[in-house]
Amino acid sequence: MELRSTQTPDILPSYWYNIVPDLPEPLPPMIHPSGEPVKRSELEVLFPRSLVDQEISTQSRIPIPEAVRETLLMLGRPTPLIRARRLEEALKTNARIFFKYEGVLPTGSHKINTAVAQAYYNAVESVERVSTETGAGQWGSALSLAGNIYGLKVRVFMVRASYLQKPYRRILMEAYGAEVYPSPSTKTNTGRKLLAENPDHPGSLGIAISEAIEDVVLSGGRAKYSLGSVLNHVLLHQSVIGLEAIKQLELLGVERVDYVIGCVGGGSNFAGLSYPFIGYNYNNGEPPVFIAVEPETVPSMTRGEYRYDYGDTAGLTPLLKMYTLGHDYIPPPIYAGGLRYHGVAPSLSILVKNNIVKPVAYPQDEVLEAGLVFARTQGILPAPESSHAVKAVIDVALKYRGASEKPTILFNLSGHGLLDLSAYTRNH
Amino acid sequence: MELRSTQTPDILPSYWYNIVPDLPEPLPPMIHPSGEPVKRSELEVLFPRSLVDQEISTQSRIPIPEAVRETLLMLGRPTPLIRARRLEEALKTNARIFFKYEGVLPTGSHKINTAVAQAYYNAVESVERVSTETGAGQWGSALSLAGNIYGLKVRVFMVRASYLQKPYRRILMEAYGAEVYPSPSTKTNTGRKLLAENPDHPGSLGIAISEAIEDVVLSGGRAKYSLGSVLNHVLLHQSVIGLEAIKQLELLGVERVDYVIGCVGGGSNFAGLSYPFIGYNYNNGEPPVFIAVEPETVPSMTRGEYRYDYGDTAGLTPLLKMYTLGHDYIPPPIYAGGLRYHGVAPSLSILVKNNIVKPVAYPQDEVLEAGLVFARTQGILPAPESSHAVKAVIDVALKYRGASEKPTILFNLSGHGLLDLSAYTRNH
Repeated sequence: MELRSTQTPDILPSYWYNIVPDLPEPLPPMIHPSGEPVKRSELEVLFPRSLVDQEISTQSRIPIPEAVRETLLMLGRPTPLIRARRLEEALKTNARIFFKYEGVLPTGSHKINTAVAQAYYNAVESVERVSTETGAGQWGSALSLAGNIYGLKVRVFMVRASYLQKPYRRILMEAYGAEVYPSPSTKTNTGRKLLAENPDHPGSLGIAISEAIEDVVLSGGRAKYSLGSVLNHVLLHQSVIGLEAIKQLELLGVERVDYVIGCVGGGSNFAGLSYPFIGYNYNNGEPPVFIAVEPETVPSMTRGEYRYDYGDTAGLTPLLKMYTLGHDYIPPPIYAGGLRYHGVAPSLSILVKNNIVKPVAYPQDEVLEAGLVFARTQGILPAPESSHAVKAVIDVALKYRGASEKPTILFNLSGHGLLDLSAYTRNH
Repeated sequence: MELRSTQTPDILPSYWYNIVPDLPEPLPPMIHPSGEPVKRSELEVLFPRSLVDQEISTQSRIPIPEAVRETLLMLGRPTPLIRARRLEEALKTNARIFFKYEGVLPTGSHKINTAVAQAYYNAVESVERVSTETGAGQWGSALSLAGNIYGLKVRVFMVRASYLQKPYRRILMEAYGAEVYPSPSTKTNTGRKLLAENPDHPGSLGIAISEAIEDVVLSGGRAKYSLGSVLNHVLLHQSVIGLEAIKQLELLGVERVDYVIGCVGGGSNFAGLSYPFIGYNYNNGEPPVFIAVEPETVPSMTRGEYRYDYGDTAGLTPLLKMYTLGHDYIPPPIYAGGLRYHGVAPSLSILVKNNIVKPVAYPQDEVLEAGLVFARTQGILPAPESSHAVKAVIDVALKYRGASEKPTILFNLSGHGLLDLSAYTRNH
């Protein structure tokens, strides 16, 4: 068997897959604190109409505009599907391990998949500028690139502590032409108020979201808000990962997948790979085991509550029904900055609640050690986020050491770790 | 026309192309200071026999061992060939621009192509360990990964100033299991002597080469030396780049190439792309213009002399006939660390001397600006080395603004700049 799928343009699908109509129970609406559902017109203050359409759509398939498809091809889709045979050998497992590798994309992760779509729809609806928040900068750099491609200004509120300590992704965002402000910033009332209290305020993702939203609300309609995970339309755009994987597995002659594994911050890379497998009844009604991996220190799915909560710390967003640690939970600083979010996507929450997706949590040291095992066998150093998935893959594969079954494991290597090398130093 | 070639395993060639028999004049032998040619047995102290065979081979095609081919496939070959249409549009040029993108490989550059081959042959000949030098760490990280794949120990002498100031690639090398020492080190006589004179010695590439060679010579045959550019066998291994490009252009329906462009440090990425086009009489005897780009501050080809010179600063290597600035030339610190070498490959020197390859030199600020133009149009931030090629591409393309001809330009984007972001900050 070939160790690597082909990468030909026809593998990139012409539509996105929307899991909403296939969920085991209806998706609870976004609501106001009063309990009243959020109106479409209210969402349109934040997002362009076409993205609001996608956010509330109950259609299974949504066509990918040709301009978006062309940009995704230009940037490196379809991404490779690779068999991790050296990892299999090192683990002495009978399992076959495949991974989808999103790190070949220019900003080094899957985030560009939705950034391109969001920038496109904003540009088509003549939005001048998109504002967003970013922690370490993976999402911010993806949106900066995508905005640049469609002639859209991008303003990024970057958590001040990261802005000062990790200048590299900021440089990348600026290289793509974005405006990057340390948050709290002097651009918003929220920011100015916090800076007045503490001129050295380190910031937080919650504050940065509040600043981006305020920036949009006060823009008189010229700016819109852009989010890199959690919402339905974001997860929708990531479905290209799983749709490509299904075609590529078929081309490699793999007819059955027993485990589908991904890491979860807000849920977009996990959903991107797994939702098409869930929705399409892969394996003819004998579904794979779906494993969603989170850090032990941010255990939204394994220890959180399923309830309505805000998406941000300050409580400016609508309430979303989801597994949450509480919107005031401040995750400790971990290397996997992309997983430091108090909640998870509402659609993923329903799948967890219905035991369709099985959540697991791992401590950081075991996760990073797993990442090093992967680097030494397959050559790619994973992003610390993706190393969470690798850790779960290794644990599953080890169960099949000397076993008679030969299960197939598929996981999402959502990004490379070349901008997070300090996570893997011996001195941490 | 598709904007991107397919990536299928059959595109990776089954042989390497050796330009030596096709050079316009015989390659002068390596010699001792006495003028006597270096003996094969002397080369075998430094390199395994199969690599010595390749170094002195006059065969046109050398088969790629199946194990090497499989590893190259696993790591991401064939790499994509992409049409830079957004760059074309931004430049308003009539030229068509294509590039081969080596940055999808795990260490982010083309260096892994020869690292895999060298590690394989060393392992097959039961060498225990390879020693090498590295400046910023691109070559060192590629060899560390390749050595790990074939169960070979890797020892890297890394220029001390880089070791201290740029820890990221060191962390990557260690993640792949290599031993990394700041050079000058206490592992060698050369290093100890220099440290005794100056305990804070910043080191240089020349010193690091001397340390690696001493380490090998005193190993009693257990260790061999490994070099990342300049030598025939290294350039040979890089020919996969150009051989793939020829097939991919054909698949895209491109029948003619008018310019082939690459940057030059020692010459391996330039040779990798261009030599197959030179040797195969591409365009039926109407050869493309071959442009080799170097930094203005390291002008080996544009301002150096063609003569015998040492490959290292200390004069421990044999003498090579090449364009050189003198082995005691210390290039100023520039961001494109991979281009800071006083000489260029002997085979490339012959092609320059015979006007088959045209050298050009550019200043750093124009080069980095060109890199930013590329990032903003095509999405990929080039390594500072590769931005030299981009600068030349832009200059050529601008000549065809509003022209009646529609020439085709092909260049090598030898790596991404995600580990060199500080080069692109506004504050440098």
